[in-house]
Amino acid sequence: MTRKIAILPGDGIGPEIVAEAVKVLECLNTDMDLGLEFESGLIGGCAYDEHGTPLPQQTLDLCKAADAVLLGAVGGPKWEPLEHAVRPERGLLGIRSELELFSNLRPAILYPQLADASTLKAEVVSGLNLMIVRELTGGIYFGQPRGVRTLANGEKQGYNTLVYSESEIRRIAHSAFSIAQKRNKRLCSVDKANVLECTELWREVMTEVSKEYPDVELSHMYVDNASMQLVRAPKQFDVMVTSNMFGDILSDTAAMLTGSIGMLPSASLDANGKGMYEPIHGSAPDIAGRGVANPLATILSVAMMLRYTFAEATAADRIEKAVNAALDAGIRTADIYSEGKQKVSTAEMGDAVVNAL
Amino acid sequence: MTRKIAILPGDGIGPEIVAEAVKVLECLNTDMDLGLEFESGLIGGCAYDEHGTPLPQQTLDLCKAADAVLLGAVGGPKWEPLEHAVRPERGLLGIRSELELFSNLRPAILYPQLADASTLKAEVVSGLNLMIVRELTGGIYFGQPRGVRTLANGEKQGYNTLVYSESEIRRIAHSAFSIAQKRNKRLCSVDKANVLECTELWREVMTEVSKEYPDVELSHMYVDNASMQLVRAPKQFDVMVTSNMFGDILSDTAAMLTGSIGMLPSASLDANGKGMYEPIHGSAPDIAGRGVANPLATILSVAMMLRYTFAEATAADRIEKAVNAALDAGIRTADIYSEGKQKVSTAEMGDAVVNAL
Ligand SMILES: CC(C)[C@H](C(=O)O)[C@@H](O)C(=O)O
Ligand SMILES: CC(C)[C@H](C(=O)O)[C@@H](O)C(=O)O
Repeated sequence: MTRKIAILPGDGIGPEIVAEAVKVLECLNTDMDLGLEFESGLIGGCAYDEHGTPLPQQTLDLCKAADAVLLGAVGGPKWEPLEHAVRPERGLLGIRSELELFSNLRPAILYPQLADASTLKAEVVSGLNLMIVRELTGGIYFGQPRGVRTLANGEKQGYNTLVYSESEIRRIAHSAFSIAQKRNKRLCSVDKANVLECTELWREVMTEVSKEYPDVELSHMYVDNASMQLVRAPKQFDVMVTSNMFGDILSDTAAMLTGSIGMLPSASLDANGKGMYEPIHGSAPDIAGRGVANPLATILSVAMMLRYTFAEATAADRIEKAVNAALDAGIRTADIYSEGKQKVSTAEMGDAVVNAL
Repeated sequence: MTRKIAILPGDGIGPEIVAEAVKVLECLNTDMDLGLEFESGLIGGCAYDEHGTPLPQQTLDLCKAADAVLLGAVGGPKWEPLEHAVRPERGLLGIRSELELFSNLRPAILYPQLADASTLKAEVVSGLNLMIVRELTGGIYFGQPRGVRTLANGEKQGYNTLVYSESEIRRIAHSAFSIAQKRNKRLCSVDKANVLECTELWREVMTEVSKEYPDVELSHMYVDNASMQLVRAPKQFDVMVTSNMFGDILSDTAAMLTGSIGMLPSASLDANGKGMYEPIHGSAPDIAGRGVANPLATILSVAMMLRYTFAEATAADRIEKAVNAALDAGIRTADIYSEGKQKVSTAEMGDAVVNAL
């Protein structure tokens, strides 16, 4: 059995952190005979520089032929002056859409070894382990019509469309309910059903799908309240499911509750378990090339890959345990460093995880 | 000179807290000869019970004829089964729109006397004083087309429209820049210009208007990053300006940073300084009628009324100082109570503020 992984390092610190995650995968591949094969492609700013587009056809072909995709990060000031259609983030939106990666899993986990990094009081966040399931290929991100038009009176008007069909809501609902089923069986669906008709339908479909998961307790919350509750008492949540735009906002709030976004992975899955895996942090152009970036979010992303796409739970567990062992040993990259710990480079952190494996 | 104030107590704890704010206004009215006159109307669930609509014509007429509106809160479980068009929050959206109250000011202030109530570490929030300016009569809250339709394949599809014209953005920009000018002269405009064309126009117009305010430093931030930064380092912000939906979410996050949403007022202004003033908290049906609600957010809302609509800065200052004096004296309603303080009722808190005046 061969399992193809497309490797898209991207921009900024992307190549450095992806190299460490590949190192970890290669170690397990040898050790556990996982049949993993790697092939690299360009995405984002570096793809634009080479091919004039952030998502070249050959990258898309590579990803379509692969079983899973590992992405570093895209973007940087160099490409900010470009017009929208060819900006690095268009590559990201394009690949999500082309591969139909509609289910975006964003865990927010507080590592006890890093508890001090949170801006929240210890009792509010200690033990935090919540999962945000964000719809990723629909909603206002992709809705038509969209654009900027000129009105009869000569002034410009910008418009976008928030749109969800029942089937789009149903599939993300199933994704979220199955995840909740494997966790603490509580799912909170976040909407703005008191104002937006589109999210009224969202609430309706969530309620309907919940009948197929009698063991999962479904609740509904308005997005403004959800964003408050994340700050007030985040441990009340097990799994949250929401639309693309709300998920963008809430998952970043949730991530920041942990204080260590350099630690948080993500998965974006299609209907068949194929997925793209990436750290939730960005390309950090300010520290790129200096070997100081934290590779753990990317390493934890490949653990998610093994768990969700390849059903290799044991291998995934091993990676997660190795990361914990490295943290327990006091090894820290600069972003999570605190006094008394051992500050290491990107590659040294990768090595520490490999050694702990 | 007479100044007419429409009093809309609304539902739940609304009547109790509004009564205390009126008590404070009456005291100052006598003392400073402010020429205030009060007339009451129904809004929300109680208006529905009486007239079959959450915003009766006579209430609207009353508010249109008034110089300012004081609102308590609307809604409660009793009216949740009602169909959307007549639910209490429709009354709120209706009055915002009918009175063209496009500029919603939501301060998030941490009272040093209540610093412990925050879930954030003291050093992250101590001294927090930020102002969120939310566009309130446009965007996806009011955009057309909207609804739920049935597609050719028989499935339902929900849709809403995010839409802003240049002039709508320009007027909220001017509102935010003038406020920043009177504060620390830093304005952060929040958008999602990397994905939504509508907010690209938002960014463009903000930048254009900034030329008329050379003394104010304008920055731009994506909404996902803004929601992170509010948790990471909220004191970096002076004034934030954003669209209706993003403002709904971010202002609630910001409010919760203080840990005492029972303390936070808000103002919703039209182009001529006429305004509706209300606490940011809800109608709290669970504690309604028991005389335990905190009236301070409503009392601070009338301070905003005196400041923004009636240009009575001295009177506004007096109220704010009186609230601080009551807090300094250790007087607390249940929601902000902590050991060693004196727990008082809604009316006793109102009296404490009046005495401190
Ligand atoms: C870069 C941007 C388009 C993207 C998004 O908004 O989805 C990012 O914020 C994310 O959350 O992955
Ligand atoms: C009740 C609801 C319609 C309202 C809103 O979303 O604007 C509320 O959340 C608010 O922020 O005032």
